[in-house]
Amino acid sequence: MSAPTIRAGVIGATGYTGYELLQLLHRHPQVELAWATSESSAGKRICDLYPSPDETPLIPQQDAKLEGVDVVFLCLPHAASMEAVARVRAAGVRAIDLSADYRLPDAVVYQRWYGHPHTQPECLKEAVYGLCEINRQRIRGAQLVANPGCYPTTINLGLWPLARAGVLEPRIIADSKSGVSGAGRKLRLSSHFVEANENISPYSIGYTHRHIAEMELVLGSYVPDLEITFSPHLLPVNRGILSTIYIDVDPSLDEEDVRRIYAEAYADEPFIHLLPAGQLATLRHTVGSNRCAIALTPLPRPGQWIVTVSEDNLLKGASGQAVQNMNLMFGIPETTGLI
Amino acid sequence: MSAPTIRAGVIGATGYTGYELLQLLHRHPQVELAWATSESSAGKRICDLYPSPDETPLIPQQDAKLEGVDVVFLCLPHAASMEAVARVRAAGVRAIDLSADYRLPDAVVYQRWYGHPHTQPECLKEAVYGLCEINRQRIRGAQLVANPGCYPTTINLGLWPLARAGVLEPRIIADSKSGVSGAGRKLRLSSHFVEANENISPYSIGYTHRHIAEMELVLGSYVPDLEITFSPHLLPVNRGILSTIYIDVDPSLDEEDVRRIYAEAYADEPFIHLLPAGQLATLRHTVGSNRCAIALTPLPRPGQWIVTVSEDNLLKGASGQAVQNMNLMFGIPETTGLI
Amino acid sequence: MSAPTIRAGVIGATGYTGYELLQLLHRHPQVELAWATSESSAGKRICDLYPSPDETPLIPQQDAKLEGVDVVFLCLPHAASMEAVARVRAAGVRAIDLSADYRLPDAVVYQRWYGHPHTQPECLKEAVYGLCEINRQRIRGAQLVANPGCYPTTINLGLWPLARAGVLEPRIIADSKSGVSGAGRKLRLSSHFVEANENISPYSIGYTHRHIAEMELVLGSYVPDLEITFSPHLLPVNRGILSTIYIDVDPSLDEEDVRRIYAEAYADEPFIHLLPAGQLATLRHTVGSNRCAIALTPLPRPGQWIVTVSEDNLLKGASGQAVQNMNLMFGIPETTGLI
Amino acid sequence: MSAPTIRAGVIGATGYTGYELLQLLHRHPQVELAWATSESSAGKRICDLYPSPDETPLIPQQDAKLEGVDVVFLCLPHAASMEAVARVRAAGVRAIDLSADYRLPDAVVYQRWYGHPHTQPECLKEAVYGLCEINRQRIRGAQLVANPGCYPTTINLGLWPLARAGVLEPRIIADSKSGVSGAGRKLRLSSHFVEANENISPYSIGYTHRHIAEMELVLGSYVPDLEITFSPHLLPVNRGILSTIYIDVDPSLDEEDVRRIYAEAYADEPFIHLLPAGQLATLRHTVGSNRCAIALTPLPRPGQWIVTVSEDNLLKGASGQAVQNMNLMFGIPETTGLI
Repeated sequence: MSAPTIRAGVIGATGYTGYELLQLLHRHPQVELAWATSESSAGKRICDLYPSPDETPLIPQQDAKLEGVDVVFLCLPHAASMEAVARVRAAGVRAIDLSADYRLPDAVVYQRWYGHPHTQPECLKEAVYGLCEINRQRIRGAQLVANPGCYPTTINLGLWPLARAGVLEPRIIADSKSGVSGAGRKLRLSSHFVEANENISPYSIGYTHRHIAEMELVLGSYVPDLEITFSPHLLPVNRGILSTIYIDVDPSLDEEDVRRIYAEAYADEPFIHLLPAGQLATLRHTVGSNRCAIALTPLPRPGQWIVTVSEDNLLKGASGQAVQNMNLMFGIPETTGLI
Repeated sequence: MSAPTIRAGVIGATGYTGYELLQLLHRHPQVELAWATSESSAGKRICDLYPSPDETPLIPQQDAKLEGVDVVFLCLPHAASMEAVARVRAAGVRAIDLSADYRLPDAVVYQRWYGHPHTQPECLKEAVYGLCEINRQRIRGAQLVANPGCYPTTINLGLWPLARAGVLEPRIIADSKSGVSGAGRKLRLSSHFVEANENISPYSIGYTHRHIAEMELVLGSYVPDLEITFSPHLLPVNRGILSTIYIDVDPSLDEEDVRRIYAEAYADEPFIHLLPAGQLATLRHTVGSNRCAIALTPLPRPGQWIVTVSEDNLLKGASGQAVQNMNLMFGIPETTGLI
Repeated sequence: MSAPTIRAGVIGATGYTGYELLQLLHRHPQVELAWATSESSAGKRICDLYPSPDETPLIPQQDAKLEGVDVVFLCLPHAASMEAVARVRAAGVRAIDLSADYRLPDAVVYQRWYGHPHTQPECLKEAVYGLCEINRQRIRGAQLVANPGCYPTTINLGLWPLARAGVLEPRIIADSKSGVSGAGRKLRLSSHFVEANENISPYSIGYTHRHIAEMELVLGSYVPDLEITFSPHLLPVNRGILSTIYIDVDPSLDEEDVRRIYAEAYADEPFIHLLPAGQLATLRHTVGSNRCAIALTPLPRPGQWIVTVSEDNLLKGASGQAVQNMNLMFGIPETTGLI
Repeated sequence: MSAPTIRAGVIGATGYTGYELLQLLHRHPQVELAWATSESSAGKRICDLYPSPDETPLIPQQDAKLEGVDVVFLCLPHAASMEAVARVRAAGVRAIDLSADYRLPDAVVYQRWYGHPHTQPECLKEAVYGLCEINRQRIRGAQLVANPGCYPTTINLGLWPLARAGVLEPRIIADSKSGVSGAGRKLRLSSHFVEANENISPYSIGYTHRHIAEMELVLGSYVPDLEITFSPHLLPVNRGILSTIYIDVDPSLDEEDVRRIYAEAYADEPFIHLLPAGQLATLRHTVGSNRCAIALTPLPRPGQWIVTVSEDNLLKGASGQAVQNMNLMFGIPETTGLI
């Protein structure tokens, strides 16, 4: 009885997310890489672009054959992914999209946050939001999975148990700090070493960052009139996100009640690391792994809590979760090929 | 007409704060260093402890003569400073204390936060809280100045205009991030390079950090029932603090009103850098200078604001502000010897 | 046909090397961890010491049963390892020692470099130097493997092909740069974040560092009158070593000859990454993997070359190579459990 | 008796070197900034480009009036500076050029290293190489000073005493490590945070970097047949250069002789920090100051030494030395406005 092999293609393999995904797929015992595409670097190999022995050739998207491929990962920028996904789905091939194009529930919400219309409403209808711990059953049968955003994964996993239990108050303040790889490999002044090093910079703070839409999607289905304030900061590290989340909880719950809600919600979750009372989440809890670490700190004022959550933005926040989704979709153990 | 010379002594010169202060005093055109003390390193010179050409000899505290000295700076740990200040004051010499021992208004509050009694209540009575922009008149005549804590300086300067104007709501969430020098030169695992680098760690979050007492002191005098949540984080940089502060303001004020309150409060302040609308404070705005940078960001929900504040924790947050206090105490231009 | 399982014990599991090794063993498909010891932290678990979900309990060395154990890894400081290895060997259990105690060929050389006598000359005789690419055959049958030092691995792998071919001139200058984890988890001022960050510090330069003995051991057997100048530097990164090595080669060899010598020496080596002409080795070529990257740069003056070599000091420079040695000793594929 | 005021213009003020220079000039007690130019950002202010309160307006070069200006600093890229300097000199205004265009002794050498002809041979003739400690007398009367390159300053200052004394052997290996600001503010992948952080990268190693020409200029006048191997590395820090230099010295000199040669050569030099025996130069010895730190380490083999040298690449390696040159040219104390 030999394990099945999944033939996978990767569209857009040369950004940080795509490169990370390729490395995960190379090490995955049940995946065979069919091809990897890059428009800007077609004809080159990964080792021409990265300090790596990876000799995977890069081909243009139009040369990427969909026949015989079981799943396609798309690591394209937002908007560019919309039609590429549709082409994959038109060929009947399953798709995991790492962009934001298929994460929101309908074209109206999409246009409100992204400022341009969604051109593929049919595909959008079949998309399943790939936050594995919350949506596992629907992911198993999905043909198209929208891989969650990096920031929302920390905040949604950090608050979902309380939201689902109906005890989370609507006003939420999430102060998030992300490593620079989250901003991609594209050259920009804010990612220039001298500007980012020995610095921390807030950006898009308040109610402007598009990732808020995903938090409203997941948490808003349980908490009416959700009111999220979200402040991302650029941190002088390569990888990792820490979210420090300030919340109010039904004050009739004592500390033990709150901890039990999390323990039950995440019992047996292989990638959720609930920290014991007294510990706080740090980047080092998760960087290099697909885990999400969650710590709960009660304030002396009843009902007030701080939830600290960390993840590796390129793993649980992107490519690691994409592989976790693939494992679910193809019915193999969820942790295969992941740490 | 030659400028007067201030003869200054430094007690506890070998920590980061003491060393930074020595360098400022060496460059100050009107200061002559009388002596610098260290118990652990008496007999050595600064250049034996730091990669520096500074040959200042270190003497034990008991050999430090107070006659002929105009001012003594104390850079001792909390509690150790209490009696050392009293000895300086008993000799009639003016003192600037960089510890927390004289910052709080009375011995009762001190004991509540620091857990041991204050042994010098007489000295405590004459101490003036040295937040220059807010307390300038009292500092001018002071014999004993308690130099503010690093974190409280960002939060107090960031919110004082609104507090004084009576428009600040009591619930405040301050998410602060500090460079590792704020934890001192003492060896501890959390300051070990491998542990702090590529990481960010929250610590003492909620309502446990002693610096909250100073925020209640300054802001609480204007805002009844103040309710501060304060979350410090250790940041992988050497110097600098960024505080991201979430507040509610009287919703009848529009954006222009709020900006005007700050502009008037800090008109002509040489060390306050009010950022224009649309900019956010970052460490690079202030590291290396005695400035405090403040940016105001309105949220779409009326009355909700985010205030981002940065400073260099060793300058405006410690030794730079100590020199600013000295300049005020001795009637010389407030910016002398500072950048 | 199921794969054999190797029962492994780890002595000294709480330093950076021991912790890294534990993580590798947990992921190794053919290893079962028997126990892990720590004197200072006996009774605690790994997750009490590291930001990790690893609940491995730590026991004192005296409670570690050798019966039923196939191999013991020792991650003790130099000198402390000497007798611990002897106890393991006395029980007939194979050992892989990550300290320097069994790397040198005899007790006289050991005492010259380490300043104290070697108390276990019998064990020393059976020890095999575990530089896998060079000593593979002897490692396969070894009962005791001395895992090489981190710096020597870069320099020995970087020069061995030329030394073996008899074309390397004896005067060698190796300028090496290492991440701070190489100095261990012990608290010391040079590893304090503020001191190491934004800095680079040479130390033990010239002919003083003990690792030179290992270079003389490996290269000196081919090159008479070897004259190594070795300058380590502490680099503000967590992991990785880069060695920039200045050598003279028989000037009758042209560039192609030299490249061919390396290509042949390292043909089919899974962990040697020979970079193509024009590329230089950087830390990013190897950090996170067990690879060693080697690049050759000819100077315009005939016979002069610069060899740049990088590795992850905790993997190929320590725990990764230890697992590679174990794989060889137990006859399983050399790359099992390694990246 | 009031101090004279020097009216200074800055051409090319928006790179790291130009910005650093502006800050030095603002703090210089005897300088008045006449104007600052930028082609790409004309119409903006410094505070629009940098996190700074500096409101200096930026004008296009053609609007910069030379009348009434005492000195012009040019911070342009190589080649671009050639004609801009000539225009300044044609107006009879003294110039300090921070590019490489006027550093080499004649047009032939310039073309050999820079690959294009020198279009202003007349100006080139009057240029004085502005390495203050070595060329002080000629700088005093100079109309045009070519400010030295950052790397050569460390190597030339580190070896000049021995070269001048006629005891330096011609074969020199300089392994240099520089902070990322040395590569400028221009966006490029090697300066992207994620690529440079947690890394060290050699580049242009061997005999290819143009800065070798300046070393041959200074040291080659004393040492016939100089043979320099120069290997720059990109270091994950913002500022600072460390050069580790391997040399041979006349073996008849003992350690004391060599130290005396340096002590005499640099007696009373305000910006040379000769470290005592046993210390090694690190970045922290000099970053933030205009100093150059030099340490001498003898090897056990007679005549072999390692010289470690550090500087702040933006101060002694660029803008600080430019101000030092200005001070010399205008007859004011050499240390004015510098730390």
